Amino acid sequence: MSSPRVAGVGLTHFGVHPERTGRDLFAEAALTALDDAGLEATEIDELYYGNFMGELAEHQGHQGPLVAEAIGVPERPVTRYESACASSGVALHDAVRAVRTGEVDVALVGGAERMNNLGTAGATEGLAIAADDLFEVRAGVTFPGAYALMARAYFAEFGGDRSELAHIAVKNHANALPNEYAQFQREITVEEALDAPMIAEPLGLYDACPITDGASALVLVSEGYAADNDVDAPVVVSGAGQAGDTLALQDRRDLFYTPATSRAADAAYDEAGVGVDAVDFAEVHDCFTIAEVLAIEALGLYEPGTGIDAAGDGETTRDGATPINLSGGLKAKGHPVGATGTSQAVEVTRLLRGDHPNSDAVADATTGVAHNAGGTVASATVHVLEVPE
Amino acid sequence: MSSPRVAGVGLTHFGVHPERTGRDLFAEAALTALDDAGLEATEIDELYYGNFMGELAEHQGHQGPLVAEAIGVPERPVTRYESACASSGVALHDAVRAVRTGEVDVALVGGAERMNNLGTAGATEGLAIAADDLFEVRAGVTFPGAYALMARAYFAEFGGDRSELAHIAVKNHANALPNEYAQFQREITVEEALDAPMIAEPLGLYDACPITDGASALVLVSEGYAADNDVDAPVVVSGAGQAGDTLALQDRRDLFYTPATSRAADAAYDEAGVGVDAVDFAEVHDCFTIAEVLAIEALGLYEPGTGIDAAGDGETTRDGATPINLSGGLKAKGHPVGATGTSQAVEVTRLLRGDHPNSDAVADATTGVAHNAGGTVASATVHVLEVPE
Repeated sequence: MSSPRVAGVGLTHFGVHPERTGRDLFAEAALTALDDAGLEATEIDELYYGNFMGELAEHQGHQGPLVAEAIGVPERPVTRYESACASSGVALHDAVRAVRTGEVDVALVGGAERMNNLGTAGATEGLAIAADDLFEVRAGVTFPGAYALMARAYFAEFGGDRSELAHIAVKNHANALPNEYAQFQREITVEEALDAPMIAEPLGLYDACPITDGASALVLVSEGYAADNDVDAPVVVSGAGQAGDTLALQDRRDLFYTPATSRAADAAYDEAGVGVDAVDFAEVHDCFTIAEVLAIEALGLYEPGTGIDAAGDGETTRDGATPINLSGGLKAKGHPVGATGTSQAVEVTRLLRGDHPNSDAVADATTGVAHNAGGTVASATVHVLEVPE
Repeated sequence: MSSPRVAGVGLTHFGVHPERTGRDLFAEAALTALDDAGLEATEIDELYYGNFMGELAEHQGHQGPLVAEAIGVPERPVTRYESACASSGVALHDAVRAVRTGEVDVALVGGAERMNNLGTAGATEGLAIAADDLFEVRAGVTFPGAYALMARAYFAEFGGDRSELAHIAVKNHANALPNEYAQFQREITVEEALDAPMIAEPLGLYDACPITDGASALVLVSEGYAADNDVDAPVVVSGAGQAGDTLALQDRRDLFYTPATSRAADAAYDEAGVGVDAVDFAEVHDCFTIAEVLAIEALGLYEPGTGIDAAGDGETTRDGATPINLSGGLKAKGHPVGATGTSQAVEVTRLLRGDHPNSDAVADATTGVAHNAGGTVASATVHVLEVPE
């Protein structure tokens, strides 16, 4: 067994694309990834595809065969994974395993989501199917409310307030500025973030990611395939972890801690044979600013209660010791739900390869992490990507 | 690498259970399978779960964490697979791979679906999301219509008429008679089948499977785990195959042939190291009677154009050379979509172990096949189960 290599990556622009279908978005990302890899679609052995709410947004389930057909290989085995906002993170976890164990030589993994055609209210209602319908949604909980509860619990346990969260939004907008794929290529200030309309106290509009259409894809190849076919693939996925937690917040011991992320991280670090100290930078699941805090703590980058100051103190900014969300994150790059997990892995790859507009911030980096979460982190995946010595 | 062993199986009653939630149904099947295996839920390493239309039927996506929690292991990695009516077949394919490659020692795999709460029209409309929304559904195609087109194409190519299909319905109802889990435990006659209301010419009511609520689950363990823990698990999953095809019928060369099944079967037979001659009996995806014909031909059990006479000629009845759908099939046992693939593997296991009410029909059998299909066989899985010598 050897770690899969990332042979190619592809993204669509993340934004508002109501005139484009999911299959069309995915095909663009997938064909871009194949082109980047220098491979033909016919060389793909299997496809792994993440999508969350196609049933609601496009009246379209059974998207696996649809996306395989969209890139010209309808006969290939293709699997659609759904784990809410971690859908393509879970797809990636499975693709990595298939290549690592020698079952598959060339895997295409990615995801797509259309959301804006539902409108803001429709998309928020659609997203709510990722929460527990019986015990959360019917009580009025949507995700802005759920993460607001988590933020309040965090503040109550450790102190802090929303002004510290604002620095996370400012950082991620700044990171997105040069990213041609980002939904928001514009900077904001702390004052603007704090003055924005409140959506669920203590979270304001700039504490939340936008509603996004988009797709992402990676081509993974085995070590042997890369060698035999002279594929240029400097980045490897050296560790993959997946874990779960109760779907409903009410069944958790704490609201200020996300153990599914920790479990997934432990599994990924263990598989990669690295400690958290080896992590040079990370793309984490900042669907809300508080989620970035919970992520960097659960990943082990910060002790519980200390992550909230990291952005304001400049530790996680592009010039900090451990840059977080150099892509712009879900907050500013955007969050096309089913595409997010593999998008993060694409961005870590670009950053490590040196062809991301923010690569200069991590010029000496060899190890990046991608962290994807579903719901209120009832599901989580963590992947370690490295440029081997 | 060694073939996973089936340590335990579980089913709910298949039928109309509008008062029960999907999580409740799944928990019953999963806990039954664990009990059958003599294992505790905490011994499960990972969960693999198939569900097709929970977003529509229960306003519930992200069911992976929900079902892991329902059996008491919310922290475990759990993945929800969706491939229309092949959802849990795909989950099984992945679970088998994970155990076979040594990644996982104990896997719980299953599926659940609620459908009757949508009503017949609502369920039919919901099922239609498995077809191509842009090119089929908006043109008025639902699955009864799609399979009627396939039946007409078959009759046009090879001859035959709906009276031959009636024998398939009669056979599968007869098989379901002693099956305590079956939705329809009653026999029908050829005359009743032919006199039933037409739903999509040439398919009548008795050519179609019912709308079903239910769940199914299996516990798979590695060879090593079974030996070390003295787990009684006489049946192995010796081969697993998965393949795809275009989602829309219009993009296929032929409507009377389902190559995704053939490709999946070839992969499964190859992995098992058996030829089709070794197959003693099969559970196949008879969502409509014509689908059983297409399945037994694509599995290689019958030459193209010859499968339609098999039931009427007594070759696939319980006393025939190769009994098909001894469980009653989707037609009479029922078709809770996301649960069907693993239900078929449960039934093959029970038949091989000798504890199925129809086991006497295959008393000397050592090899059974489970065939699951999504949509108009745009996705297919085939599993070979054996009692090793």
